[in-house]
Amino acid sequence: MYSAEYLHDFTYGLFRKIGCPEQDAATLADVLLAAEKRGISSHGMIRIKDYYQMWEKGRINIQPSIRVLRETPGTAVVDGDGAFGMAAAKRSMQIAIDKALQVGTGWVTTQNSSHFGIAGYYSMMALEQDMIGIAMTNANPLVAPTYSKSRMLGTNPIAVAIPAGDHPPYVADFATTPIARGKLKIKGQQGERIAEGFVQDAEGHPSTDPDIIKQGGSILPLGGDHLHGSHKGYCLNSMVDIFSAVFSGANFGPFVPPQVPYLEAPDKQTGKGLGHFFGAMRIDAFQEKETFKQRMDQWIETFRQSESAEGQPPVLIPGDPERAMETQTAREGIELIDAVKKDLREVAGSLGLSFDME
Amino acid sequence: MYSAEYLHDFTYGLFRKIGCPEQDAATLADVLLAAEKRGISSHGMIRIKDYYQMWEKGRINIQPSIRVLRETPGTAVVDGDGAFGMAAAKRSMQIAIDKALQVGTGWVTTQNSSHFGIAGYYSMMALEQDMIGIAMTNANPLVAPTYSKSRMLGTNPIAVAIPAGDHPPYVADFATTPIARGKLKIKGQQGERIAEGFVQDAEGHPSTDPDIIKQGGSILPLGGDHLHGSHKGYCLNSMVDIFSAVFSGANFGPFVPPQVPYLEAPDKQTGKGLGHFFGAMRIDAFQEKETFKQRMDQWIETFRQSESAEGQPPVLIPGDPERAMETQTAREGIELIDAVKKDLREVAGSLGLSFDME
Repeated sequence: MYSAEYLHDFTYGLFRKIGCPEQDAATLADVLLAAEKRGISSHGMIRIKDYYQMWEKGRINIQPSIRVLRETPGTAVVDGDGAFGMAAAKRSMQIAIDKALQVGTGWVTTQNSSHFGIAGYYSMMALEQDMIGIAMTNANPLVAPTYSKSRMLGTNPIAVAIPAGDHPPYVADFATTPIARGKLKIKGQQGERIAEGFVQDAEGHPSTDPDIIKQGGSILPLGGDHLHGSHKGYCLNSMVDIFSAVFSGANFGPFVPPQVPYLEAPDKQTGKGLGHFFGAMRIDAFQEKETFKQRMDQWIETFRQSESAEGQPPVLIPGDPERAMETQTAREGIELIDAVKKDLREVAGSLGLSFDME
Repeated sequence: MYSAEYLHDFTYGLFRKIGCPEQDAATLADVLLAAEKRGISSHGMIRIKDYYQMWEKGRINIQPSIRVLRETPGTAVVDGDGAFGMAAAKRSMQIAIDKALQVGTGWVTTQNSSHFGIAGYYSMMALEQDMIGIAMTNANPLVAPTYSKSRMLGTNPIAVAIPAGDHPPYVADFATTPIARGKLKIKGQQGERIAEGFVQDAEGHPSTDPDIIKQGGSILPLGGDHLHGSHKGYCLNSMVDIFSAVFSGANFGPFVPPQVPYLEAPDKQTGKGLGHFFGAMRIDAFQEKETFKQRMDQWIETFRQSESAEGQPPVLIPGDPERAMETQTAREGIELIDAVKKDLREVAGSLGLSFDME
């Protein structure tokens, strides 16, 4: 078990060592540790080796000049200048928040960025300002549209954070697919099969093999098949792609560059890097702050009182599972799997740092 | 078969006859006929009898004073004053569009409204202004959160319309459940069973009975069960409820009043009427207009080229099925089922009007 502080310091030190500005190194450490604390280890320390190697290969600009390309009072298009996604995303969300302070809401789309970690982090930035926060990103293509066998879309997550009063906030943060890439990987490593409705093979036949992605297979949109509404999942997923990339001038759909060092970017580009979309809405644009928070508390209390179906656990409010993990990791520390520890020791070693405390 | 013009004139005349202002009667006819033309007959002429009886019972205000309760440069809260949902919604979307002209985007939440027909109609209003349009609404509770057997949420649709250039626009308009209420009704009338993953009985057990809703059953969120990501569908669906009702001051979740005359509103209220949420974003807030449209065309062309899985039809762009129906109904006319014709003759008769041409 590691303490969050130790992992944060290590991560900060590592990104400082390769030359990231203090602020960006801190942002990277904040976002990666937020994922670990919230139990989303697929977006935590496990990513550091890939990020490091992406930088080594010259695919990340660690001295970016992140800037606004175009704006109105309520919107902006941001050029991430090839930065680590966290740096570009945090700056973009801050711009959305600043615009919301002026005109009620702010909406920012970001081009020329890269993998930004958990979408929830950026949506939750809005909470401190008594705002609703929204964050989305496109991602490398693994998902097939309804009826298709082609990998056209990423797992394109959406995060929405809404402040409450006495209760913790509502925080939804989910991939627009029935299963995340990270979960498939774990099932594959464990040699397990998965239920139908998650993936298909290269010809588009249903599959229960979690490793089918490595053989040209694809992930299905939320809903699974057309009968069960996968066209709605496809709508949602493709909307995220358009908001993140068509709006911003980033690569869309199948042209999103891979975010891992061992896969090259496709020859054809339809924009720059990958894209994100952020929104911030002041709660007092809609209600007096206290009224809004009381209403959200009432909403949360109402939904907590939903009756569970036989044999099912209590009904959750979006954000509950991640908060439970935050409590647990604060008490017990953060566990890393051996493969991640090994990666971190390697990366640390090649930079003259060490990763060994436990 | 009926011509759209005949049905439009009839609908306009009917709502004029009960005393609606010209503009509102025209809006009601426009929205109901848009549904019929687009093949969404569950939201077309079939609703007229309910709307008429809701008015007869004094549950609709046909001389509403729809007004802005609160605003910032980019947002507004609208009081629908108990109007037909179409009247409140069209006015609200117009305000969102006007605000977007000023500050790039406009966002409006509406309280004290009622059933507004197809969400797609309002999102598509933005297209004419070279804007992206968004529309959502909450609805009477039939959907159970993940793990629950309680009906807490409506089928809460989301519509997003995005302009393109040479191609028709991208128009997604979908309930955030795997199946719509209307489809269940039809299956029930035909005496058919449905697949698992759509509904559950009053105890929360999986059911294949399309009529289970009448026996205390509920509709599942998009995804079906927790294993297949229904918590994501629940997030999406509950988000629509919060944006539409917590933001606006309408009734949320289980307190949304029924939109049919034979069911009374619950005693407890958490706001006024039902709620909607609308957004408009100028495409030139993000890109030069022509650039944006070219990029959307390129996106659409790319996705049309997705390879179909074996035995599957061509991959669709959101909006394709409804446009195909528009072409068909323009050529062949609009078919109404006998029960609807009977209802329309009855309503017409009681108003001294006639419905008989075919």
